[in-house]
Amino acid sequence: MSELSAGFLKNIKRVKKMTDSQEEVGAMTPLQLYERLNAQGEQVRCLKTAKAEKAEIDVAVQLLLKLKTDYKHLTGQDYKAGCPPPENVVNQDNGAATDGIDEEDNVDPWNVSTSNAKGVDYDKLIVRFGSSKIETELVDRIEKVTGQKPHRFLRRGIFFSHRDMHQVLDAYEKNKSFYLYTGRGPSSEAMHVGHLIPFIFTKWLQDVFDIPLVIQLTDDEKYLWKDLAIEECHRFAVENAKDIIACGFDVNKTFIFSDFDYMGSSPEFYRNVVKIQKHVTYNQVKGIFGFTDSDCIGKISFPAIQAAPSFSNSFPQIFGGRKDVQCLIPCAIDQDPYFRMTRDVAPRIGYPKPALLHSSFFPALQGAQTKMSASDANSSIFLTDTPKQIKNKINKHAFSGGKDTIEEHRKFGGNPDVDVSFMYLTFFLDDDEQLEKIKQDYSSGALLTGELKKILIETLQPMIAQHQERRKQVTEETVKQFMTPRPLNFKL
Amino acid sequence: MSELSAGFLKNIKRVKKMTDSQEEVGAMTPLQLYERLNAQGEQVRCLKTAKAEKAEIDVAVQLLLKLKTDYKHLTGQDYKAGCPPPENVVNQDNGAATDGIDEEDNVDPWNVSTSNAKGVDYDKLIVRFGSSKIETELVDRIEKVTGQKPHRFLRRGIFFSHRDMHQVLDAYEKNKSFYLYTGRGPSSEAMHVGHLIPFIFTKWLQDVFDIPLVIQLTDDEKYLWKDLAIEECHRFAVENAKDIIACGFDVNKTFIFSDFDYMGSSPEFYRNVVKIQKHVTYNQVKGIFGFTDSDCIGKISFPAIQAAPSFSNSFPQIFGGRKDVQCLIPCAIDQDPYFRMTRDVAPRIGYPKPALLHSSFFPALQGAQTKMSASDANSSIFLTDTPKQIKNKINKHAFSGGKDTIEEHRKFGGNPDVDVSFMYLTFFLDDDEQLEKIKQDYSSGALLTGELKKILIETLQPMIAQHQERRKQVTEETVKQFMTPRPLNFKL
Repeated sequence: MSELSAGFLKNIKRVKKMTDSQEEVGAMTPLQLYERLNAQGEQVRCLKTAKAEKAEIDVAVQLLLKLKTDYKHLTGQDYKAGCPPPENVVNQDNGAATDGIDEEDNVDPWNVSTSNAKGVDYDKLIVRFGSSKIETELVDRIEKVTGQKPHRFLRRGIFFSHRDMHQVLDAYEKNKSFYLYTGRGPSSEAMHVGHLIPFIFTKWLQDVFDIPLVIQLTDDEKYLWKDLAIEECHRFAVENAKDIIACGFDVNKTFIFSDFDYMGSSPEFYRNVVKIQKHVTYNQVKGIFGFTDSDCIGKISFPAIQAAPSFSNSFPQIFGGRKDVQCLIPCAIDQDPYFRMTRDVAPRIGYPKPALLHSSFFPALQGAQTKMSASDANSSIFLTDTPKQIKNKINKHAFSGGKDTIEEHRKFGGNPDVDVSFMYLTFFLDDDEQLEKIKQDYSSGALLTGELKKILIETLQPMIAQHQERRKQVTEETVKQFMTPRPLNFKL
Repeated sequence: MSELSAGFLKNIKRVKKMTDSQEEVGAMTPLQLYERLNAQGEQVRCLKTAKAEKAEIDVAVQLLLKLKTDYKHLTGQDYKAGCPPPENVVNQDNGAATDGIDEEDNVDPWNVSTSNAKGVDYDKLIVRFGSSKIETELVDRIEKVTGQKPHRFLRRGIFFSHRDMHQVLDAYEKNKSFYLYTGRGPSSEAMHVGHLIPFIFTKWLQDVFDIPLVIQLTDDEKYLWKDLAIEECHRFAVENAKDIIACGFDVNKTFIFSDFDYMGSSPEFYRNVVKIQKHVTYNQVKGIFGFTDSDCIGKISFPAIQAAPSFSNSFPQIFGGRKDVQCLIPCAIDQDPYFRMTRDVAPRIGYPKPALLHSSFFPALQGAQTKMSASDANSSIFLTDTPKQIKNKINKHAFSGGKDTIEEHRKFGGNPDVDVSFMYLTFFLDDDEQLEKIKQDYSSGALLTGELKKILIETLQPMIAQHQERRKQVTEETVKQFMTPRPLNFKL
């Protein structure tokens, strides 16, 4: 057994122990629990500093969240580091456990975790981030404007939140077009199925609206955040571009760029970066991204580089110097902090605010408490996995909402809301009726966990095999074409 | 009278009042003086925030320094904001006034000021910055290695401090060459004679060592620090390049670049910028440059952009990707903080540390308490001034070390150490014997202030007229040639 697996299992067992029994915590005084929380917080920080495996950190974070919930239960107050509980604190059983858990959802561009097996509470996230929910009305409107059946990600609320999407459609209806911007941080050669979500959806948007698209590969960000050489990050960017191209983007309407390359070949892009950097203070990025004084100045100024593609004059070869072309950004909700900052800056530098469409996270095989992560092989199904690997991973790791025995399962049914295989099917099985039937059968107990997993395996295996086939056909020449700054074919 | 002049004179009068009489301060208790200091500190901050004229700020700073000295006299302690004097503080007359003044020299890339009319105490600055004094031995060695009479800036200690110059010469003697890097922040179209100092000296170095030179125009820095548009800063860069070219640089050995242009045309330059940004924390730049949390993230990350040209692989078109070519930076000492940072980073990213030659400041017409500033027209002789303007400015504004009446001057002699006209002659009059005679005659009283000023006027008028003539001949085509990334003609 690898060291990783051993450490991971050890932690998993500790979480299980904590979850199964209240004994340990139940016997603690508020002050003891407070001190246990301090220690656990310290452990999380140490793991992060030591660059421990993501799975191990996630488990430690879950323990921390659990302890915080217990603390609130015990004291009726939120845990605050540096503020021990008052001596005369009253034990309360206020039943606010669920609220407590939800409030602990941790979502920023580098971490996503929750203690809730159903995943992050997205309605609360919408309130916290100040975005708008994608209501049925908006989905219907997109259908009307494009004349196309909405993508399953819209039908099923996988893209669940937006900013200014109605305004984009208003303008589109008046023949004022827009462009798409999405991206990826190339931290390794290995992309997993979760990484495809924004690209699958963006391709659909490009097709139905017939608009240009820019895709940023933040190899500079990965160099700043990870223990990697510049050359590695750049190579990952080019390798990732191949997977992105394999999603079927139209080369005549799509520009893919590495920051390291494009910054050094576009004075206009750099001008916008500096313009943004002039209008954002350290206090602001500290508040938005949680930077500390020990962070390198590269991290501190990076948000401007992710912001710059939101403005059309960053791409004069595409938009001919126009600065007023509206941008729409489809991305996972954890990227929203960058674009809240961008939208704050935009009017102050005379540019339109980018609009956004936010997706939920693609869950790890182990459960929706964290998102799938390429740095943890066991949490992910990679785009390079063989049919056999796909089968084994799902059978071995995919968290099940089923019961412990067949008898119980037949009697009480499974829980699709926490079942990772079912969640994956909502992402990839396009047939709404079939999906609904699977849900019914699984809930009733008619469908067993093994059978559900088999459906998922048979959905993913051909999908990934086809992706691999398309990727094989992406030549260096094709990559070069996509990644060369050039005019695109479209009418605004 | 312009508002500027009125405000300036009002402040000058207040300084004069403070300097002439100890009454106001003499009658104060330590606490009263402490409160007066707080108020004066607040005034300096307000003037800076309100972007007041530089001359006005300088005068307010001088008052502040004066009050601090008085405070130390009165209490025997250094003034510290937020720490009022103890009640039982003992009045001391410890005669430490001069030391007090010297310790208040304020030298960073954005401000230079001192309360000493002779200017900044450079020996103390060498100790504070941890650089090495340019001793006669080093000047002699440069003469021996190059076979040329040392430039007057070396003979007269105008370039007075260095880092690693002996190492550069050691390598040069073993046929291992180096390159020069200097720069300018193009904050306006108007350059003054003080701006020429590093360029005159750099041209001399280029000639005697026969080596390539890169000149950075930090138009991005000026955009970040000043209330200017990007286009203005870039235009200033191109205009300033004309004045720099007029200094006589060899187009075959010199590359001049605007940051806004070069960052967007050299992926290698951006790679080095990010590499440096990864290895410098906010804590470090806060310590070195005094940034605060309210500063924009552009300022915070800018030091890496001034650092990057110190590494030869930032210029692959010149050095063909070699990263080991030693860099020598001639610059005014106020730029040293950037290169202390650069030298700290260099070994951690596998590059050689740049060597440095530091010059003293070119004094304002009003005296050596501040350096000449283009943003204060009365403190400066511009490269565009007519012979008549030069004459008037020197006669009207150049601070005199002479006595109040001819009789007194003849009897006691003038003081060349605080006389701005004499200081300027040390910069521009190449004849050592003539300069020495002027000094003797002025000190003895044989030479009157008016006569000294006449010598300076007759030195500067033809020098600036010739500069204007050479600048006229700099065509747009020539500028383009200098500013195009290209191979240079040299052997390493």
